[in-house]
Amino acid sequence: MSKYCVGVDIGGTTVKCGLFKVNGELVDNWEVPTRKEEAGKNILPDVAAALAQKLEDHGISNDDLCGIGLGVPGPVEPNGYVSICVNLGWKDIYPAREMSALMGGKIPCKVGNDANVAALGEMWMGGGRGHDSIVAVTLGTGVGGGIIVNGKIVAGAHGLGGEIGHMHVRDDEQEYCNCGGQGCVEQAASATGILREAKRVLAASDEPSKMREYGDKLSCRYVCDCAKEGDKLALKSLNTSMDYLARGLAAVAYVVDPEVFVIGGGVSKAGIFLVDLIKEYFAKYTPLAQNKPDIVLATLGNDAGIYGCARMVLE
Amino acid sequence: MSKYCVGVDIGGTTVKCGLFKVNGELVDNWEVPTRKEEAGKNILPDVAAALAQKLEDHGISNDDLCGIGLGVPGPVEPNGYVSICVNLGWKDIYPAREMSALMGGKIPCKVGNDANVAALGEMWMGGGRGHDSIVAVTLGTGVGGGIIVNGKIVAGAHGLGGEIGHMHVRDDEQEYCNCGGQGCVEQAASATGILREAKRVLAASDEPSKMREYGDKLSCRYVCDCAKEGDKLALKSLNTSMDYLARGLAAVAYVVDPEVFVIGGGVSKAGIFLVDLIKEYFAKYTPLAQNKPDIVLATLGNDAGIYGCARMVLE
Repeated sequence: MSKYCVGVDIGGTTVKCGLFKVNGELVDNWEVPTRKEEAGKNILPDVAAALAQKLEDHGISNDDLCGIGLGVPGPVEPNGYVSICVNLGWKDIYPAREMSALMGGKIPCKVGNDANVAALGEMWMGGGRGHDSIVAVTLGTGVGGGIIVNGKIVAGAHGLGGEIGHMHVRDDEQEYCNCGGQGCVEQAASATGILREAKRVLAASDEPSKMREYGDKLSCRYVCDCAKEGDKLALKSLNTSMDYLARGLAAVAYVVDPEVFVIGGGVSKAGIFLVDLIKEYFAKYTPLAQNKPDIVLATLGNDAGIYGCARMVLE
Repeated sequence: MSKYCVGVDIGGTTVKCGLFKVNGELVDNWEVPTRKEEAGKNILPDVAAALAQKLEDHGISNDDLCGIGLGVPGPVEPNGYVSICVNLGWKDIYPAREMSALMGGKIPCKVGNDANVAALGEMWMGGGRGHDSIVAVTLGTGVGGGIIVNGKIVAGAHGLGGEIGHMHVRDDEQEYCNCGGQGCVEQAASATGILREAKRVLAASDEPSKMREYGDKLSCRYVCDCAKEGDKLALKSLNTSMDYLARGLAAVAYVVDPEVFVIGGGVSKAGIFLVDLIKEYFAKYTPLAQNKPDIVLATLGNDAGIYGCARMVLE
């Protein structure tokens, strides 16, 4: 009887791997260095070799495995084809097929985009547990999203699906976003965006603020810390950032209306204080519905990927 | 062998019915008056009686029916429960169960919200034919949306799903939308919104415009007609309206990234001229992707509902 599944979250530096029981219990996890040289041709063989050893250690045979899920840091077509993945050196590859062949050809393998897969992980065993329609929002260097409707990842048809960081929400933004647009959610609400907004607020004011004490060391984290302590300018700038984030989340709600938004990424370490701010603005932009999607914190951190990869093969 | 399916689109004045072959060919269609009195208790019996007669006329037995799909002008819960439908007088009803009982208890019946179901119709045999991920946009008195991902309606968890008309897109809007918000897509891009924007542009300018000749008779249709003829102020106002609509569609694309947007409703009678305007602004707000969702006109008009209702039971 098949009782285990494996999640393999392939990053640019390391591959995170997790062995799970099908009920979501993590049995073991380990990492493998990502060897990107020679077009990344060693990555999957390295993963397969390490996995084979782990299975032996745990006395688990291939027949006990439901499957192996792979998460890839780049676009994956619906048929599992990866035309290019710059972070891994891959070109023109079907990673799941290769992984399956490396494991003897009998273990079902699936592949998905890492951000989408992480959302699936949060749904399975994280902040979105118990729900089957969630939107995972990652507030990090950028702003990413993973859309899950009725338990399935919505990947989209042209690589735009879940790219909620690039919704236009701010008309007075003069700088350009990496995407080529202006006024994206990401420019206001990523770690970078939160810091930039705080610097703008400081530059435009003579008022005292604890943020000034940090000088060049000012970071998104310090902005959030100062806001929590009640610093007026920090609160002002963080409110602006969360206002624009909430416009984006409201737009998401007006499309798929998930049961819950799960907020993760480095910025989410500001915790429930931040969630409460987001909720306040989210309510402002969704007057239509009395009942609204809940907004909660992600709980799996960097492990969301391995959980989601493993969950992928249970569908 | 079951070879037919029936679509029943229940409106506040009439019920539109269609008998289809399972390949989407319309065999017959008819209407039944909507008797809303006595909490709408006669609506489904009237439909059932008319349907029984039609089946007899065509020599089709109940065994030849795959099912009957009902479209309802209001919220429908995932289990088919309608707590209230003001347009029909209904309260606390499971319409599909009742319909099935009225037809002898053996014909599978399903029920869905009429806007969502119309989107399914456009996917099956209309502007979205050949695709399985579409977003139908209805530009009428209001702006509505129907989201279909992988062939399935995305209804959402709190009644917000597909309500794309209520995304906030315009900061300088002073009037309030019916939803209680300000600056909704609907306020700029519905028939009402297009007309209001044109009146504002006229009021703010001394320039000549053919629109002025219509006086109080000016309508959305005339605004579009004048814009097509190159009238400067009409073009200016219609560009503004389509700019705000495109911001909403871009946000939709950044969530579910459909293969195609299908534009319907009264305003869409302005045709390909309008679609080209929308495409221009849509491209502006989606610089991230080189390939983009296509934008096309709906083709089924008021029949989209019966098509979609019938399609619902083929899933």
